[in-house]
Amino acid sequence: MDVVESLRALIGAGAVLDAADTATRSAGVWRPDNLQAAALARPATTGEVAKVLRWCHANGVGVVTQGGLTGLVHGADAAPDQVIVSLERMRAIEDIDPRQRTATVQAGVTLQALQEAVEEHHLMFPLDLGARGTATLGGNAATNAGGNRVIRYGMMRDMVLGLEAVLADGTVVSSMNHLIKNNAGYDLKQMFIGSEGTLGVITRLVLRLREQPVTRNMAFVGVDNFDHVAGFLRHMDRALGGTLSAFEAMWGDFYRLVTSPPAKGKPPIGQDYPFYVLVESQGADSELDTQRFNNAMEAAYESGLVVDAAISQSETDCHHFWALRDDVEQTLHGGVPVIFDISLPIAEMDTYTTSLGPALAAAIGPHRLFIFGHLGDGNLHVIVQVQAQDYLRLRPLIEQQVYAPLAAFQGSVSAEHGIGLEKKPYLHISRSAVELGLMRSLKHALDPQGILNPGKVV
Amino acid sequence: MDVVESLRALIGAGAVLDAADTATRSAGVWRPDNLQAAALARPATTGEVAKVLRWCHANGVGVVTQGGLTGLVHGADAAPDQVIVSLERMRAIEDIDPRQRTATVQAGVTLQALQEAVEEHHLMFPLDLGARGTATLGGNAATNAGGNRVIRYGMMRDMVLGLEAVLADGTVVSSMNHLIKNNAGYDLKQMFIGSEGTLGVITRLVLRLREQPVTRNMAFVGVDNFDHVAGFLRHMDRALGGTLSAFEAMWGDFYRLVTSPPAKGKPPIGQDYPFYVLVESQGADSELDTQRFNNAMEAAYESGLVVDAAISQSETDCHHFWALRDDVEQTLHGGVPVIFDISLPIAEMDTYTTSLGPALAAAIGPHRLFIFGHLGDGNLHVIVQVQAQDYLRLRPLIEQQVYAPLAAFQGSVSAEHGIGLEKKPYLHISRSAVELGLMRSLKHALDPQGILNPGKVV
Repeated sequence: MDVVESLRALIGAGAVLDAADTATRSAGVWRPDNLQAAALARPATTGEVAKVLRWCHANGVGVVTQGGLTGLVHGADAAPDQVIVSLERMRAIEDIDPRQRTATVQAGVTLQALQEAVEEHHLMFPLDLGARGTATLGGNAATNAGGNRVIRYGMMRDMVLGLEAVLADGTVVSSMNHLIKNNAGYDLKQMFIGSEGTLGVITRLVLRLREQPVTRNMAFVGVDNFDHVAGFLRHMDRALGGTLSAFEAMWGDFYRLVTSPPAKGKPPIGQDYPFYVLVESQGADSELDTQRFNNAMEAAYESGLVVDAAISQSETDCHHFWALRDDVEQTLHGGVPVIFDISLPIAEMDTYTTSLGPALAAAIGPHRLFIFGHLGDGNLHVIVQVQAQDYLRLRPLIEQQVYAPLAAFQGSVSAEHGIGLEKKPYLHISRSAVELGLMRSLKHALDPQGILNPGKVV
Repeated sequence: MDVVESLRALIGAGAVLDAADTATRSAGVWRPDNLQAAALARPATTGEVAKVLRWCHANGVGVVTQGGLTGLVHGADAAPDQVIVSLERMRAIEDIDPRQRTATVQAGVTLQALQEAVEEHHLMFPLDLGARGTATLGGNAATNAGGNRVIRYGMMRDMVLGLEAVLADGTVVSSMNHLIKNNAGYDLKQMFIGSEGTLGVITRLVLRLREQPVTRNMAFVGVDNFDHVAGFLRHMDRALGGTLSAFEAMWGDFYRLVTSPPAKGKPPIGQDYPFYVLVESQGADSELDTQRFNNAMEAAYESGLVVDAAISQSETDCHHFWALRDDVEQTLHGGVPVIFDISLPIAEMDTYTTSLGPALAAAIGPHRLFIFGHLGDGNLHVIVQVQAQDYLRLRPLIEQQVYAPLAAFQGSVSAEHGIGLEKKPYLHISRSAVELGLMRSLKHALDPQGILNPGKVV
């Protein structure tokens, strides 16, 4: 049997690339290499996805599902003997229901396409992340994407009301629930969300939409110790009464990096504080929201939780504040960054981050360390910068120093990026042998031949 | 082998009731009958739960886990040859972490005990329902409980960060995650939440806490048609900018019932409107929140969305408003209520509820029909009152009329109460054959002998 010819017979000649054509495509927006696979199938419907899977299942061929290829953990890498299923032709926004506040989409729709489509109904799809223009909603669901506003709206898991998935053997599970409350039996969609394509291929989604906020208030503050950062989080969350939408912490070194040349960002406050926080509130009443935000900031200042603050006076200020937080590209200057995405209890963060620098110095010698993240969610991004020529040699040593201490307090080696291939060797730090065993039982129950995204996660 | 003696040898004589002692206990707070089982085990630790399950697994004995016995769907009924595992001795609140805003509890802790324990930290556990004093957190998790503030804080599923469960064979799965973001492999806890004790016995939980709101604004409004009810929901959700905490709709007949003798409630507004809504906002700044709430109400009135409104002037008013909504007991006067807990798209509600009365009249003759519910979540409680002597005969006919139309628009036969035994014959209305098959695959993977809560759900 020939893979390419067989699949072409099932879903059409134009819908299947052979190995040579597949190899002309980039492996992803951050990747220097190209795709490799026996074939790349581009089904246009759930039925076609099912046909491809049924054939692969019958012939024992591995299947790797691909969305926008913006993942960071090699979760969608394929091997030369496997078939890639790309959802690039399943880009229909099937329905937006402004009364029910739901959207029904095919899995290949990009995050940004949906964000823009719901705007005219004064609605918002609250997931947001840098790769919005390329990342697909199917990929967001398969990896349980996080992003900047998890503290208010949750992760992708919290926004998926229903989904349709194709199992390894081609069975279509249509579970397109539109209801916020539905306790009619097991909540099957939960299995597929965050399973990184190893339990099924997500083909369609029903997503929950929210009212579009119309006002925004922000501040960029300096804080003199970590206890005050944690205290400031609770203070603002309480004082803003349900409207806190982001709480992004930056350790001093990161702030100085993104507010000093060659970075273009100007420092909104002094550069000598140990910690900085960008705090954002979204609401609906410009005057009252501003008054409340300013009251909350004033109280924080008076109680000593913050020692310096710049408060946004315009949307331009807000964009400027976010641009500083998002200017992670600066870590590319003067070296190569090793990027981590961990989460840990807030009570452990100070000790962990204080110990990390010396531990890295002992293990790898000179380096630069940048820390920032979604503090309200317990999620820190740790970036260790080393010289390009040392990268491959030092990377495993750095991973060891960053991950190993997490085991003591049940920290996570992946807050939001997922496991893929990259973090699989470290999954045991965050999960017990029993948990890993149960994951394998689930995998075996749904995909006994192991054809879905072989070797990833478990 | 003797069940009672065997279990006593494992966890102690005082920890196991025999069949006769078990039969002296009530089957639940709403139930006229008593428990029946071969034995009732009261383990004090997860290890003891594991011992009991291991024994039952080895001997092919069915196990029914019981919490506070406040469920409404016969989800915890046991048979004479089965073993009840009661978590009544696992009532420790192990830890409240005010910085991480988490609580770690044993599964037998009541909802109210946790609500009260976190107050001193100015925190809130936002799940709330009438049975709070008896219902256990383990039961809340096993049934994915809902309640009054789902629109703001979600269901129990959204509040569980981690859990520990014992599998059918006695394996302890400890997945006590404390982190809001954790994508380290499959999110195993999701399987156990809402599975009604059929996949494992939940023994401990890590729960997410929220800041305690300090202000509350409410209104009780009259609305002249259903479109305006739906429009008022969107208007208030948007205008309150993240602080809407309840949106409870009442059809006219229910309002008149709870505001007319023998009910003690006084009508806050006229009794002739077709629809009523109780709307609540919780915040943090008394003056600004009141101003915003009143602005939002004024705009609603001016645009014609509401035609009459009573706005709370005090906490006493708030209690009075809620007391009307909660006075479901009035449906016990003059007949016997058949209580439903459905959910359906908002766009279908008007047609569904308008058709239901005539359909019931044709099927069962004279009856009374009361409708109210958590409209913001798509969840309606439908109560059909019939005469006591007709109850048993009419009940299946009523179920048919209430459930059958839901199939056309993917409504749910259970928004929040679960399936248990009561709704199992109707589960197919809300779930396809493929979904039911996948549920059975999961059940088989985790409990191949079928000893956990036999016959429930799937």
